[in-house]
Amino acid sequence: MTSEYKYEFFNVSFPAEYVAHVEINRPEKLNAFKEQMWLNISAIFRRLSHDPNVRAVVLTGAGDRAFTAGLDVQAASQGSITKTSTDPARTANDLRRHIAEFQACITDLEKCEKPVIAVLHGVSFGLALDMSLACDIRLSTADTRFSVKEVDIGLAADIGTLSRLPHSVGNASWVKEVALTARVFGSDEALRVGLVSGVYQDKGKAVAEALRIATTIASKSPVATMGTKELLNYSRDRTIEDGLRYTGAWNMAMVQTQDVKDAMLSGLKKTKPTFSKL
Amino acid sequence: MTSEYKYEFFNVSFPAEYVAHVEINRPEKLNAFKEQMWLNISAIFRRLSHDPNVRAVVLTGAGDRAFTAGLDVQAASQGSITKTSTDPARTANDLRRHIAEFQACITDLEKCEKPVIAVLHGVSFGLALDMSLACDIRLSTADTRFSVKEVDIGLAADIGTLSRLPHSVGNASWVKEVALTARVFGSDEALRVGLVSGVYQDKGKAVAEALRIATTIASKSPVATMGTKELLNYSRDRTIEDGLRYTGAWNMAMVQTQDVKDAMLSGLKKTKPTFSKL
Amino acid sequence: MTSEYKYEFFNVSFPAEYVAHVEINRPEKLNAFKEQMWLNISAIFRRLSHDPNVRAVVLTGAGDRAFTAGLDVQAASQGSITKTSTDPARTANDLRRHIAEFQACITDLEKCEKPVIAVLHGVSFGLALDMSLACDIRLSTADTRFSVKEVDIGLAADIGTLSRLPHSVGNASWVKEVALTARVFGSDEALRVGLVSGVYQDKGKAVAEALRIATTIASKSPVATMGTKELLNYSRDRTIEDGLRYTGAWNMAMVQTQDVKDAMLSGLKKTKPTFSKL
Amino acid sequence: MTSEYKYEFFNVSFPAEYVAHVEINRPEKLNAFKEQMWLNISAIFRRLSHDPNVRAVVLTGAGDRAFTAGLDVQAASQGSITKTSTDPARTANDLRRHIAEFQACITDLEKCEKPVIAVLHGVSFGLALDMSLACDIRLSTADTRFSVKEVDIGLAADIGTLSRLPHSVGNASWVKEVALTARVFGSDEALRVGLVSGVYQDKGKAVAEALRIATTIASKSPVATMGTKELLNYSRDRTIEDGLRYTGAWNMAMVQTQDVKDAMLSGLKKTKPTFSKL
Amino acid sequence: MTSEYKYEFFNVSFPAEYVAHVEINRPEKLNAFKEQMWLNISAIFRRLSHDPNVRAVVLTGAGDRAFTAGLDVQAASQGSITKTSTDPARTANDLRRHIAEFQACITDLEKCEKPVIAVLHGVSFGLALDMSLACDIRLSTADTRFSVKEVDIGLAADIGTLSRLPHSVGNASWVKEVALTARVFGSDEALRVGLVSGVYQDKGKAVAEALRIATTIASKSPVATMGTKELLNYSRDRTIEDGLRYTGAWNMAMVQTQDVKDAMLSGLKKTKPTFSKL
Amino acid sequence: MTSEYKYEFFNVSFPAEYVAHVEINRPEKLNAFKEQMWLNISAIFRRLSHDPNVRAVVLTGAGDRAFTAGLDVQAASQGSITKTSTDPARTANDLRRHIAEFQACITDLEKCEKPVIAVLHGVSFGLALDMSLACDIRLSTADTRFSVKEVDIGLAADIGTLSRLPHSVGNASWVKEVALTARVFGSDEALRVGLVSGVYQDKGKAVAEALRIATTIASKSPVATMGTKELLNYSRDRTIEDGLRYTGAWNMAMVQTQDVKDAMLSGLKKTKPTFSKL
Repeated sequence: MTSEYKYEFFNVSFPAEYVAHVEINRPEKLNAFKEQMWLNISAIFRRLSHDPNVRAVVLTGAGDRAFTAGLDVQAASQGSITKTSTDPARTANDLRRHIAEFQACITDLEKCEKPVIAVLHGVSFGLALDMSLACDIRLSTADTRFSVKEVDIGLAADIGTLSRLPHSVGNASWVKEVALTARVFGSDEALRVGLVSGVYQDKGKAVAEALRIATTIASKSPVATMGTKELLNYSRDRTIEDGLRYTGAWNMAMVQTQDVKDAMLSGLKKTKPTFSKL
Repeated sequence: MTSEYKYEFFNVSFPAEYVAHVEINRPEKLNAFKEQMWLNISAIFRRLSHDPNVRAVVLTGAGDRAFTAGLDVQAASQGSITKTSTDPARTANDLRRHIAEFQACITDLEKCEKPVIAVLHGVSFGLALDMSLACDIRLSTADTRFSVKEVDIGLAADIGTLSRLPHSVGNASWVKEVALTARVFGSDEALRVGLVSGVYQDKGKAVAEALRIATTIASKSPVATMGTKELLNYSRDRTIEDGLRYTGAWNMAMVQTQDVKDAMLSGLKKTKPTFSKL
Repeated sequence: MTSEYKYEFFNVSFPAEYVAHVEINRPEKLNAFKEQMWLNISAIFRRLSHDPNVRAVVLTGAGDRAFTAGLDVQAASQGSITKTSTDPARTANDLRRHIAEFQACITDLEKCEKPVIAVLHGVSFGLALDMSLACDIRLSTADTRFSVKEVDIGLAADIGTLSRLPHSVGNASWVKEVALTARVFGSDEALRVGLVSGVYQDKGKAVAEALRIATTIASKSPVATMGTKELLNYSRDRTIEDGLRYTGAWNMAMVQTQDVKDAMLSGLKKTKPTFSKL
Repeated sequence: MTSEYKYEFFNVSFPAEYVAHVEINRPEKLNAFKEQMWLNISAIFRRLSHDPNVRAVVLTGAGDRAFTAGLDVQAASQGSITKTSTDPARTANDLRRHIAEFQACITDLEKCEKPVIAVLHGVSFGLALDMSLACDIRLSTADTRFSVKEVDIGLAADIGTLSRLPHSVGNASWVKEVALTARVFGSDEALRVGLVSGVYQDKGKAVAEALRIATTIASKSPVATMGTKELLNYSRDRTIEDGLRYTGAWNMAMVQTQDVKDAMLSGLKKTKPTFSKL
Repeated sequence: MTSEYKYEFFNVSFPAEYVAHVEINRPEKLNAFKEQMWLNISAIFRRLSHDPNVRAVVLTGAGDRAFTAGLDVQAASQGSITKTSTDPARTANDLRRHIAEFQACITDLEKCEKPVIAVLHGVSFGLALDMSLACDIRLSTADTRFSVKEVDIGLAADIGTLSRLPHSVGNASWVKEVALTARVFGSDEALRVGLVSGVYQDKGKAVAEALRIATTIASKSPVATMGTKELLNYSRDRTIEDGLRYTGAWNMAMVQTQDVKDAMLSGLKKTKPTFSKL
Repeated sequence: MTSEYKYEFFNVSFPAEYVAHVEINRPEKLNAFKEQMWLNISAIFRRLSHDPNVRAVVLTGAGDRAFTAGLDVQAASQGSITKTSTDPARTANDLRRHIAEFQACITDLEKCEKPVIAVLHGVSFGLALDMSLACDIRLSTADTRFSVKEVDIGLAADIGTLSRLPHSVGNASWVKEVALTARVFGSDEALRVGLVSGVYQDKGKAVAEALRIATTIASKSPVATMGTKELLNYSRDRTIEDGLRYTGAWNMAMVQTQDVKDAMLSGLKKTKPTFSKL
C-alpha cells in the first residue's frame, strides 16, 4: 500500500490500524514548499480521503527545526510569476489561475473525508498556517514559532489563512494584529486565543498525542466521524437554519448504517465494536 | 398560571418576578430524554415565549447527578427508527421527518423571545449540548462532565450541536477534537474555550447565579432584552451589512417604546423603572 | 496637512511617519458623542482612508477618565427623535433613516483602507464598543470599564455592537450575558474572552504600544496591509469558498506590485525596504 | 380517510389514485380568508405532506367567481390588530407574532412534500398570490383577474408575495409595476411574464388539466418527485455550488431506492411501474 | 423647491402632485455621461429619496435621439484613469476606488425610497442599462436601441449591469448573449425577455404612460409603496426564509400606520384617501 | 494543436480563428453518455479554458437525431452503483463521491473561461439539460425535443439541472411542471420561457448561427469577454452588493489591459482591433 504514497518530499506511514502519518520531508530547507510539493500533498490527501484503510491522519514536518518555513521564497522568486506578460490584465489572469490551483491543493486537506491532525513545531510560518487551518485539529509544542508571514514579503496571504483564520479563532483583534504585523508568536498565545487545542513539551510528545487522538478517532464508526467533520465544516460559515437542514439530509442516509446498532450494542455490552471499512 | 405548565417530566416554577425556572425532572434516569420529553420542552418554551409574566428563563436538571445524560438510548433503540422500510429511500425520508421534528423542538429554545440561561451540572452528554447551545447563556459547575457523545453511538450529532458549536466557541480545533473523539471534558476547559461563561463551585451556587442573572435581565425593558437576543442571533451567522440592515428595520419600531423614556428618566433620577408587560 | 483634519471635538496628529493618531476630545463630558461628532469622525476616517501619508491609525480618547461614555444621552433626549410624527410608521421611517446614517458613520472606521487600532481606557460604554468593534485591533488598560450599556436605556444596541460582537469574540454565552445585563466588566475578562488582544498597565503604556504596532504596520507594504484588512473583513462572515475566490480576484492585481520584489529583496539582503505611497 | 380532512371552509377529495383536491369553499364571500381558514389550510397541507396515499395535490376555489378575493378585510378590520397596545413597540411585537404565524401557515403549502398545483380563476387578489406562489405549478383561465392588492389597503404585502414573486417571474420591471400599482391584470399577461405556465378557456378545463398533470406526477416514483420539488426549492435562492452539494447529500440516500430499478426496467420493458407508498 | 434641484445637465420638474420628473439634459452629446453627471444624479436621487413632496419619480433623457449613449468615452479617455501609477497594484487601487464611487452613485437610484420609472428611448447604450436596472420599472419605445456596450471598449461592464441583469430578466442565455456580443437589440426583444414591462409607440406616449403609472403610485399610501419597493429589493437575491423574516420586522412598524385604516375605509366608502407626507 | 484534443467520442475542430467546436460523437447511440465521456468532456473544457488560441466554444451533437439522449441507461444499469455495500451508509458515501465527481465534470463547462454556446437539436434529454445549463448560450432547432427526463427513471436530476434551471428561466411554475412530469417540450416553448435565446429552422442553420455568435465574441477583447462571463456567473446567485464588490476587485486588474485603449481607439478610428492572446 505504501508504494502508492511514494513522493520525494513526503513520508507516508501507517503507525496504527486505520491511522496514516504524513511527514513533510525536506528538513534541510526547513520543509519549505516548492510547487511540486503542494501538488504532491494534494495528491496524497485525495488518495487518503478515499482509502478504506485510513480513518484519521496526522500531519507533521520532518526534523526538529520546523513544521514548515512556508513558501520556498528563493524557488518562488526564480520561477517568478509576478509578471508573465507586459499587459497587467493578462498577468493578472495567469496569477489568478496560479492562486486558484494552489488554493485548491491546500483545500484538499480540508476536503479529505478523514479527520486530519496537524502538529506544528519549530518554525511554522506562512504556508504552515494556510495548511494547518485546512486541517481539523491543531497541536503545537513549547518551541513552536508561528507567523502569518506574508505581509513581510509584500502580499496579503492568499492560500487560505485570511479566509479560514477568522472562522477558527475567537479573538478578531488578535487575528488582525498578527496578520498585519507578521509578528512571531508562541504556543502559549496560540492556545489562549484558540489557534491550537493542545500544547506539548516537545515534538515527540506532541506527535504521540496526535497519534493517540488519531487512534481514538479511528476506533469510532468511520461513518460517524466523516459526518461529524462534514457537518462541522458545512455549518461553520452558514446560518443555523441551513446547517440543520443539511444535517437532516445527510443523516437520513447515514443513520441507517449498521454502525449505529453495533455501537449501541457495544456500549451496552461494554465491548469494543468493529466497523466495516468505508 | 403554573397549571398551564404541568408536564410529567418537567417542573416549571416562578422563583422571582418575571423569572421562570424549568427543571428537567427525570433524575432516576439521569434526566435522559425520550420523545415525549422533547415534545414537552418545546411546548413549554413556546408558551414561555409569549407569556407576558416571563422575561427570563433558567433551565436546569433535577437531582445532583446530571443536567441530562442525553438521549435515552434504551428507549430510542426500542422504538428504533433506523429502519422503517425495506427501501433505503423510504427509511431515509422517515428519518428526515423525525430529525426535522426533533431539531424544531430544540430550536424552540432558541426561538423563545425571552433569554434562557442553562445551568449544566454533573453528566451533560449529547442532547445536553444540543439543548444548551440553543440557550443564550451557559453556566456550569466544578463537577460538570461534558461530552459531545454522538460518535460513540455511531452517528454525527444531528439535533443542533454540529450547527451551533462552531458559532459559539472560539477554538475550531478544540470543537473538532471533542466532537470527533467524544472525549469527556470539564468546566475549566469549557470556560477556557468559551463554551460556558461562568463556572461555580456546585449546582446550588450555579443556580443561584443563574437566577441572579435572570433577575437582572427581568429588571430591564423587555423590549430591549428581546431585541438584543433577536439581533445577536440574527447577526451571528450573517454578514455585518445584513446585520445592520435588519437592526435598522427592527429598531425603527422598537425604539418608539415608552420604555426608552422611562429608562432614561430613571437613569437620570437614579430610580428603578417599571416596564409594561410584553 | 493637519489643517484638513481640524474638528472641534477631535485632535488628529501624526506622531510617526505614516501613522495618524485620532483623539476624541471632549474630556469634560467623558468624550460622550453628539450627532456632530459621529458625522465628524466619519469625515476624518474617510479622509484618512485615501490619505497617501497614512498607513495606520490609532484611536484614543482625551483625558484620563474615558475612551467614551457613549452617546450623550442628555443631548439625545433633547433632540429626541423617538417620536417625530403622530403616525408610528412615519416616525419609524425617520428613525430608520437616522439609524442608517449613524451606522454608516461608524462603519466608515471599518471601511478605512488603513488598519485602525483602538485604545479603550477608563469608561468605555455603549458607543465605545460600537466604534472599537469597527476598528481592527483593540487594546485596553487595567482600569478600563466596559459595558454594552444600551439595554439600560431601554433599547437594543443598533449602531453595530450586536452585529459585530458575535463575529469578534469566541464565547457566545458571554456575549449574550454582557449584552443582556449591561454589566460592567474589566480588561481581564475582555482579554480572556477575546474582545481585546492586549492589556496594559495604564493609558500611557497602552497608547505607546498602539503606536508601536501602528509603526510596525506602517513599515510594511501598504498594498499588503490594505489587502490583509480587506480580505480578513470579507472572509469573516462569508463561506471559505467565497473567501478564497474573492482573494484570488483581489491578489491577481495586488501581487503585481513592485513591493513584493522590494520586500523579498530586503528580506534576503536584511535591509529595510521603502514602499511607494498608496 | 376523508374524515380526517373535514373543515368548514374546505372540501378535500381524492379524484384519482394518489391525487388530492383541496377546494377553498366559501364562495358566497368570494372565498375570502379569515383567520380560521389559514390555520385550517395549514393543517390540511401538513397532513397531505405525510399522507402515504397522496402524491400530488390540486388547489382550487369553489364557485365560478373567485379563486379567492384575498383577506376578508371586513373580518380583519373587526378583529383589528393594528393597535393592541398604547406602546408602539408592544403593538409591533404583537404584529410580528401575527405575521410570522400567518406566513408559516402559507409556507406549509411550500413545505408540503407532494407537488401542489394551483388553479387561479376569476377574482385572484392579494392572498391568492401569496398562496399560489407557495404552490409549485400555477394555471389560470381566460377570466382570471389577478392583483397584488395590498398597497390598496395601505400596506406592503407581507404573507409571501414580495418574497416569492421576484424568484418566480422573469421580468423584474413588471413585478415592481404590478406590486406598486395594485393594477388588475389577466392571464395573457400572467403567461407572458411567467407567473403561470398554462392558461385554459374556463375553470372546468383548467381543473381538468391540473388533475391531468397531478395524475402524471402521481404515476412517477414519489421518491423522485419529492426530491425534485425539494431540490428545486432549495436551489432557487442559493448559489449553484450550494445547490449541487445539497443535491449530492440528498441523492446519496434517495438514489438507493428500489424505484430506480423498477422505473428503469419498466422503461426498457415499456410497462407501467408500480411504486411503494411514501 | 425646484431651486434645490438645479444642475447643469439635469432638468427636474414636478408635473403632478407627488411626482418628480428627472431629465438627463445633454442632448447634443446623446446625453452621454461625464463624471460630474453621475455625481449630480446621485445627489438628485438622494434628495428625492427624503423629499416629502415626492412619491414617485420618472427618469428620461432630453431630446429625441437618446436616453443616453452611455459613458462619454472621449471625456473618459482624456481624464484616463487606466494607469495612474507605474505600479499595477497602486493603479488597481485607484481604479477600485473610482469604480466603487461610480457604482455607489448609480446604486443611489435603487436606494431612493420612492419608486423610479425609467423611459428608455432612442440610443440606450452601456450606462443606460446600468442606470435603468437600478430603477424599479423600465418602459421603452418602438425606436429604442439597447446595447450592453462595454465589451466593445474592452471591458466587462462594472457599474451594475452584470450584477443586476441576471436578477432582472428570465432568460440567462439571452443575458449572456447580449452581454458577450454587445449586439444592439430593440424593444420587441426587450419585452419578450422581460427587460422592460411596456413598449410604446414613441417617446411622448411612453413618457405619458410613465407619468400615469407614477401618478397611480403617488395616489397610494407612501408607506405601502416604499415598503413594497424595499421588500422586493431585499427578497430578490436572498432566500425566501430571510425575505419573510425581514418582512415581519419591517411591517411590525409599518402596519401601524394610520394609512391602513384610511385606505380600508376609503375602499369600503369608495372614496379617494389622502395620506400624510412621508 | 488538434492532437491534444483527440478523444474517442468527441470531435474537436477549429472552424474559425479563436473559435473551437466540440462535437459529441456517438451518434449511433443518440450521443448518450457513459462515464468515460463525461470524464473526457471535462478534460476537453479544462484544456480549452486555458488555450490561448480559443476565445469561444460551440458545443453540438453529431448526427441529425440528437444533441444527446442523456445518460446511457443501459451502461449505467450494468455498472450499477445504486448498491455498492450491504450497508446503506457506505453505499450512500460511494454514491455521494460518484455524484460529486460527475457534477464536477459538467461544472467544468461553466468554469471554462471562454464562453460556450450549446446547440440543442433533436433528442435533448436529461444530461442534455444538465450540460447545456452549464453553458453560457443555448440555441435550438425546430425539431428539438427537450425533456428533464430523470423522474422517469426514478430519481431527482442530480448533475446540475435542478440547481441551474431556477436561475436560468423566468417561469418557476413551468420549471416545476417540466421537471416533475418529464414531459417532452419543443423549441417554441423553450424560447417563450427563456430556456433558449434563439430557435433556428434546422441543425445546419443553428450551428451556423452559433459559429457566427462565437466568431463575434472571438473578435472582442478576450479580457472583456472572460470578465463578462465570470461576473455574470458570480452575480447570478448572490446579492447585488456582493456582485458589485466582486466586480470592483475584478476590474481593478482587468481595466488596466491594453485592450481598453486599443478597443477605444479602434472605435474612434472605425478599425478592427487586434488583441493579444490570453
